[in-house]
Amino acid sequence: MTQSLSSTLAAATSLADVDSRATPGFDGAKDDGVAALADLGDELADLQERLHAQGTTGDARSVLLVLQGMDTSGKGGVIEKVVGLVSPLGVRIASFKKPTPEELEHDFLWRVERELPAGGVLGVFDRSHYEDVLIGRVRSLADADEIERRYDAINDFERRYVDAGGTLVKCLLHISPEDQAERLVARLDDPTKHWKFNPGDIDERELWDEYQAAYQVVLDRTSTEHAPWHVVPSGRKWYRNWAVGTLLLEALRGLDLAWPEADYDVDEQRARLAGS
Amino acid sequence: MTQSLSSTLAAATSLADVDSRATPGFDGAKDDGVAALADLGDELADLQERLHAQGTTGDARSVLLVLQGMDTSGKGGVIEKVVGLVSPLGVRIASFKKPTPEELEHDFLWRVERELPAGGVLGVFDRSHYEDVLIGRVRSLADADEIERRYDAINDFERRYVDAGGTLVKCLLHISPEDQAERLVARLDDPTKHWKFNPGDIDERELWDEYQAAYQVVLDRTSTEHAPWHVVPSGRKWYRNWAVGTLLLEALRGLDLAWPEADYDVDEQRARLAGS
Repeated sequence: MTQSLSSTLAAATSLADVDSRATPGFDGAKDDGVAALADLGDELADLQERLHAQGTTGDARSVLLVLQGMDTSGKGGVIEKVVGLVSPLGVRIASFKKPTPEELEHDFLWRVERELPAGGVLGVFDRSHYEDVLIGRVRSLADADEIERRYDAINDFERRYVDAGGTLVKCLLHISPEDQAERLVARLDDPTKHWKFNPGDIDERELWDEYQAAYQVVLDRTSTEHAPWHVVPSGRKWYRNWAVGTLLLEALRGLDLAWPEADYDVDEQRARLAGS
Repeated sequence: MTQSLSSTLAAATSLADVDSRATPGFDGAKDDGVAALADLGDELADLQERLHAQGTTGDARSVLLVLQGMDTSGKGGVIEKVVGLVSPLGVRIASFKKPTPEELEHDFLWRVERELPAGGVLGVFDRSHYEDVLIGRVRSLADADEIERRYDAINDFERRYVDAGGTLVKCLLHISPEDQAERLVARLDDPTKHWKFNPGDIDERELWDEYQAAYQVVLDRTSTEHAPWHVVPSGRKWYRNWAVGTLLLEALRGLDLAWPEADYDVDEQRARLAGS
């Protein structure tokens, strides 16, 4: 690939123009995609271990993968299939549900700030602060002025995270209403998946267009140079997984991660050890 | 196996009598052990997903894997090779380092309590509250009365966790001084592992006997019916990984985890979906 997938999937266009079953930047079919993801595994695991290693020496750099998307778009699948390729040591996953009463007493970013990855950590947000301008907007969970304020607040917040050594990989897992219908039926058809279904999912589904509009505002207002959005066509699970894996890999490569150098004299320690 | 590995490895005996290179409960060589661990993977991942699924419905049950052992005993290796077999979603790893000034202002269990897994979560402690009666005892980081008090405090703490729905899997990864020397040399010989070595490791190594005595007190005082210790011979990495994987599997099997039943009418939702 001459162009990075990061620029291929940059959120430059209208969400309505994105085909959820497209496979931009990948030339091949499902089997090839599954194999290509597996092939990424070693380098991904190696770079994540370097990040973790640097963190133990006080390096402030961290990476945060933000996963957003409609129900069934595959946030959990990405965590299992992509994040699962690296060692769990140094990975921190935060799932953001409906805010608790305590969380609601604070600014919307309060609970998010507490989950920002520390130096060396690969953080994963399964949903995120963006819910507060998605369901928050669609369901009018805050007044219009407050929703309006949040876009700039998010940009400032992400800017501070990046300035402190963070790298953001923001992925919108994009599916069509047809993709979702198929996956919801699959959940209803399989008793081992009933727990993943919630009648409320259909209520949200009926607001599909409103959600798409809210996502478009998110892309327009919060895809910044320091924290760009990527629209990942997610109608094909294998492509979605490969694409997120590749975006994560590109981000880690961009950090130029070396192994930490010894801050002690190796020969001296070898001698001490021999005498111990 | 007719007897569970959990009872085979129960901390009934003296630590000094345990051969770090033994493979109790496993009949076979390295290749067989690596294959046997891989064979556990599917069931382990399935049961962990059920635990996670139950957690989303409000089930308070959780599992906490506590990993203790001398430097190089393989706490990180177990996390990578065993915990890495399940989906990262619903796994929470806490690594306990030297306490921060804020942590030192509180009781020793304060920082530990905050990391107890919530319902549905598989928690992993990479070191734990036991450090406060290990290095705490060996290095006299607290006075003798306080150290003495901590054993009962730990038992009470763990009892409360179990009463609240928790299951503890406490593993002492047991190695010999020779095992450790070999692994420390390997770290010094490999620049990609220099970050794992700390000159302080040799200082602790020189207190080997004191640490073994402190571990023996831990086994004698805190191996309870509700939270037994397992001494895992860890001189052979493949056996250690298989053994911890098996202990975790046995604990999960013991929970009799079903998939959550739908709390909605499946046919009714299917009809709603068709009309949406």
